[in-house]
Amino acid sequence: MGIRATVWGENIHERSNAEVKKIYPDGMHTCIANGLSDDPEIETRTAVLQEFEHGLSKETLLHTDVLIWWGHCAHQEVSDEIVHRVQERVWEGMGLIVLHSGHYSKIFKKLMGTSCSLTWREAGEKERLWVVNPAHPIVKGIDRYFEVENSEMYGEPFIIPTPDEVIFISWFEGGEVFRSGVTYRRGAGNIFYFGSGHESYPIYYNESVKLVLKNAVKWAATGLRWIDNCPNIPVEKAPEKIVIKGHSVHKPGEAGFK
Amino acid sequence: MGIRATVWGENIHERSNAEVKKIYPDGMHTCIANGLSDDPEIETRTAVLQEFEHGLSKETLLHTDVLIWWGHCAHQEVSDEIVHRVQERVWEGMGLIVLHSGHYSKIFKKLMGTSCSLTWREAGEKERLWVVNPAHPIVKGIDRYFEVENSEMYGEPFIIPTPDEVIFISWFEGGEVFRSGVTYRRGAGNIFYFGSGHESYPIYYNESVKLVLKNAVKWAATGLRWIDNCPNIPVEKAPEKIVIKGHSVHKPGEAGFK
Amino acid sequence: MGIRATVWGENIHERSNAEVKKIYPDGMHTCIANGLSDDPEIETRTAVLQEFEHGLSKETLLHTDVLIWWGHCAHQEVSDEIVHRVQERVWEGMGLIVLHSGHYSKIFKKLMGTSCSLTWREAGEKERLWVVNPAHPIVKGIDRYFEVENSEMYGEPFIIPTPDEVIFISWFEGGEVFRSGVTYRRGAGNIFYFGSGHESYPIYYNESVKLVLKNAVKWAATGLRWIDNCPNIPVEKAPEKIVIKGHSVHKPGEAGFK
Amino acid sequence: MGIRATVWGENIHERSNAEVKKIYPDGMHTCIANGLSDDPEIETRTAVLQEFEHGLSKETLLHTDVLIWWGHCAHQEVSDEIVHRVQERVWEGMGLIVLHSGHYSKIFKKLMGTSCSLTWREAGEKERLWVVNPAHPIVKGIDRYFEVENSEMYGEPFIIPTPDEVIFISWFEGGEVFRSGVTYRRGAGNIFYFGSGHESYPIYYNESVKLVLKNAVKWAATGLRWIDNCPNIPVEKAPEKIVIKGHSVHKPGEAGFK
Repeated sequence: MGIRATVWGENIHERSNAEVKKIYPDGMHTCIANGLSDDPEIETRTAVLQEFEHGLSKETLLHTDVLIWWGHCAHQEVSDEIVHRVQERVWEGMGLIVLHSGHYSKIFKKLMGTSCSLTWREAGEKERLWVVNPAHPIVKGIDRYFEVENSEMYGEPFIIPTPDEVIFISWFEGGEVFRSGVTYRRGAGNIFYFGSGHESYPIYYNESVKLVLKNAVKWAATGLRWIDNCPNIPVEKAPEKIVIKGHSVHKPGEAGFK
Repeated sequence: MGIRATVWGENIHERSNAEVKKIYPDGMHTCIANGLSDDPEIETRTAVLQEFEHGLSKETLLHTDVLIWWGHCAHQEVSDEIVHRVQERVWEGMGLIVLHSGHYSKIFKKLMGTSCSLTWREAGEKERLWVVNPAHPIVKGIDRYFEVENSEMYGEPFIIPTPDEVIFISWFEGGEVFRSGVTYRRGAGNIFYFGSGHESYPIYYNESVKLVLKNAVKWAATGLRWIDNCPNIPVEKAPEKIVIKGHSVHKPGEAGFK
Repeated sequence: MGIRATVWGENIHERSNAEVKKIYPDGMHTCIANGLSDDPEIETRTAVLQEFEHGLSKETLLHTDVLIWWGHCAHQEVSDEIVHRVQERVWEGMGLIVLHSGHYSKIFKKLMGTSCSLTWREAGEKERLWVVNPAHPIVKGIDRYFEVENSEMYGEPFIIPTPDEVIFISWFEGGEVFRSGVTYRRGAGNIFYFGSGHESYPIYYNESVKLVLKNAVKWAATGLRWIDNCPNIPVEKAPEKIVIKGHSVHKPGEAGFK
Repeated sequence: MGIRATVWGENIHERSNAEVKKIYPDGMHTCIANGLSDDPEIETRTAVLQEFEHGLSKETLLHTDVLIWWGHCAHQEVSDEIVHRVQERVWEGMGLIVLHSGHYSKIFKKLMGTSCSLTWREAGEKERLWVVNPAHPIVKGIDRYFEVENSEMYGEPFIIPTPDEVIFISWFEGGEVFRSGVTYRRGAGNIFYFGSGHESYPIYYNESVKLVLKNAVKWAATGLRWIDNCPNIPVEKAPEKIVIKGHSVHKPGEAGFK
C-alpha cells in the first residue's frame, strides 16, 4: 500500500473565473493530484469544499497519510469543526502540505498561531526558487534553483514562527524575497508550506513544482497515529516511589481541567 | 515610565477552595503582582476573569507591555473574543508570560497550534529546576538550579512546537522531567511559558520564582506596536520596475482574500 | 545494499582496565556493532584508533553512510587531519552518531563550535531516558521512557548549540537532568548525540539502547555526496542579465580568498 | 561605562589596493568604528592583524563586550592561538559580529562547524536587504528594506547551521537571494553575521548599515563572564542522596578526560 495523499481544493475560481477554468478545466485539485499520481509510491484522491463535510470525514482523514490544501477566496466557508478535525489528525501524525494562498487558511493559521501576514502583488512576474537546504529530501532532484515564469509575488515579512527548516527562498522580478518553502512539526505531524502556486497561472503543471510536491508527500508521511490527552500519572504509578505531601485540588482519579 | 505588567488571574480556587484561600488570601494574581512590584522598573496592575471583558479592555491591553496569565479550572469561561484580542496584541509586540496550568489556556493553545498535552500528578513532590541556558536574561541571578519543595508534577512529552530557547528543565522526585521554561516569538511578541506554580502550594512566594518572573517581564517587554495586515504592493510601487503579465483574479486596488 | 555503518572505537579502556574488559571483552566497538548487525538493513564494520589512519581512510569514509563514534580517554590522540576528513564527509552527507563521552571528542567539538561542557558523576546511578519527541523516527518502538540501571550522570548545562530537535531528556537518581538525545544537521550530514553509554557499565547490551542506535543509523543515512566550495558565479552566468559596475578586487576567473 | 566594542580589521586591501584605499583611506576598521562611535552608549577601539597578537591580547578581549570582525584575503594569517582565545571569550559571553567575507574567517568557521560555503559574484550590482523579523532589536529604525547600490553578490546555499533567527534576506540584481543577517548563541556569546560589506564599495558609509551595526552591538553585548569546564559533581554533592554502585574508571577527585 502506498502513501495515501488527499488533495483538497476550494474549487471555486476554476468554475467561476473563465481564465482559471481555461488553465485548470478539471479543477486545481485534479491537476495537483495528477501531478502526484505518476509516482508509484503515492495513492491520490481528491476532496472539495462543496462536498458533505468538505469531503473530509473522520474516515477519510483517518485513511489519509498526507493532506494537501489549496484554498483562496473561501477560507471563511470552511467549517470550524472540520478545521479542528484536521488539526487533530495533524497532531496524530497526518502530514499536511499547505499551498500558496493557504497561508491564510483557517487550518494553517491555527497550526502556526501567528497572523501569517505577507506582502503580495499579482503581476505575473518571474519567481526563482533557490534551494537553501540542498540535503533536504524535499529538494531531491532539484538543481540549485528553478523558475516559475509567471507567479504571484508573496514577500517578506512573512509572519510565521521560526521554521524548523527553510527549504526554499524565492527571488521575485519586482524586487522582493520570500521564504517559499518551510517545514514544521506540530504534535506528530509534519507540515510543509510551499509558496508558489497562484490560480491565474499554470504553476501546477511545472515539472519542478510537481517534483517538489511528490518529495514533500514522501517526507511528510509518518504512518503514525500518536495520541496523548494530558494523562494523569497517579502516585502509585510514579516511576519513583513517592508519598503524597500537602493539599490537593484534584480528587484521586479525577481528570484534569481542560 | 516603567514596564507595564498586567497580572491576569482566574480567581476561582482562591475563593472556593479553603486550602488555596489560606495560601493566597488576596488571590494568586495579587501575590504574583506583589512579587513583581518590588522592582522599580516594573509597574503592575491586576485583572481577573470576573471583571467586565475579564479586565482586558482594548485600552488596558494597549497600555500593557507584558501580560502574565494564570488560569486553571475555567479556561472555557474565557471569551473567544477576548482571547483573540490578546493574541492580536501579542502579534503587535505585547509580551506574554503563561504560568503552569495555563498550558491548557485558550490563549496558549492558540499561540502554539499544538495540543499542549503533558503528563501530571498532584502529590506535592519536590521539583528542581535546572538552568539549561545560563546566559539567558531570564536566569540572571539564578544559580545552577533552584528547588520548589512542593510542586505539581508536569512531565514530558510536553506537546509544544520546538521552543526558540529552552531555559529550564525540571527534575521531579517521582521520576519525571519537564521543559519548565521555554520561549517563543509569535509576530512581534515574546512569550515565556513557566511550568512551576500550582495553586495548592505557596510557589509564588518562592524568591527564585519571583526573580525569574521579574527577569521574564523585562525580557518579554518590547515596547513595540507593530502591525501588518497582508498589504498589497501594487505594480507601480514594486521596488523594481515591472509590467503586468497574464491574467489577474484580483481587481486593481482590491484587498486580498482573508 | 544496506546502510553502511562504521563503528569507531578508541579501544583503550577495554584492554587496560580489567573491569571494562570483563564487560566488553571484544571491545566496545564490537559490542556496539553487534547491536546494529541484527538489523538486515544495516551493514556494519568497525575501526579503531590504533589502526593506520585510525581505520578511517578516505576510501572507508567514502563508503560509510553513518559513522558511530565512541572515545573517552584518548581524544587528543586522534589526528587533526583525520578529524578534518571526517568533518568534510559529514558536510557531504555522511551521518554521524556521537556516543556519551564523545561530547568532548575533537570531531563533536568541531561540528558544534561550543565548549560542549557538562557536569558529570560516576556513581552507577539510575538514568531514566524520557521521550520528548514521540513522533521522531529515532524513538520508533520505544515507549514513554526506558531506564539504564547503572549510568554515569551527565548533567545540564550542556553547552551545545540549540539542537534542531531534542529527542530524549534524562532523569538521574542523584537529582540532575540532561538533554541526552539531540539532533543537528551540519552541511548535508545528520548528527545524533546520544548521552547514555559509559564503559564501566554494560549499557550497550541494553535492548532499548540497541534499538535507539539502529533507528538513529537509519535516520542519519542520507546516501548523499553533496559538495560545494564557494563557487564564483560570473556575470555572464548570473540568472538575470547584469553589467559590471564599479571596481573589483578579484580578477575575472580568479578563485575567492579562503 | 558604555558597551566596549572592538573593531578588528585585516587592514591589507586598504593599503595595497588603490581603489580600496581611496574609499577607506584610514582603513575599513576605522570607518566601521566611526560608524559606531556617534552612539553615546558605545565605546569603540580598533585592532588590526599587523599588531602584536593581532591586537587581541587577553586583556583587550577581557575588556571587550562586542568584537566586530572584518577580514578577507588573509584569513590564514590569523594565528590559531588567537582564534581559540576569541572563541573562548565568545563562550564566556563576548558578543561577536562577523562581517561579509568573514564568513570564511577561522573564527566564524570554528563557531559554526560547517563549511560556510556560499556563491559569489563581484559585479557591483544592487542588493536590497529585506527585514524578515521586524520585531528584532537589530532592525530598530529600519523600514521594510534598505538598499546597497553596489554590492558583492553572496548567494544561497549558504552552508551554516539553522540560525537561531534570520533577520535579513537579500535580493540581488543578478537574480540570487541570501540570508544576509543571521543570529546564533554559542555558549554565553551572541553572534550576528551580516553579509553586506565588500571592500570595493563604500558600504560602511551607508546610514542603514551603520544603524544595523549599532543595533547589533547593543543586542550582542551581555556583560557576562560565564565559564564552565566540565565540573565533576561528587557523590556527596549530588542534589539527592545516593550511594556509589558499580565500578569506576575515574578515581575520586580526578578530573575528567579532555
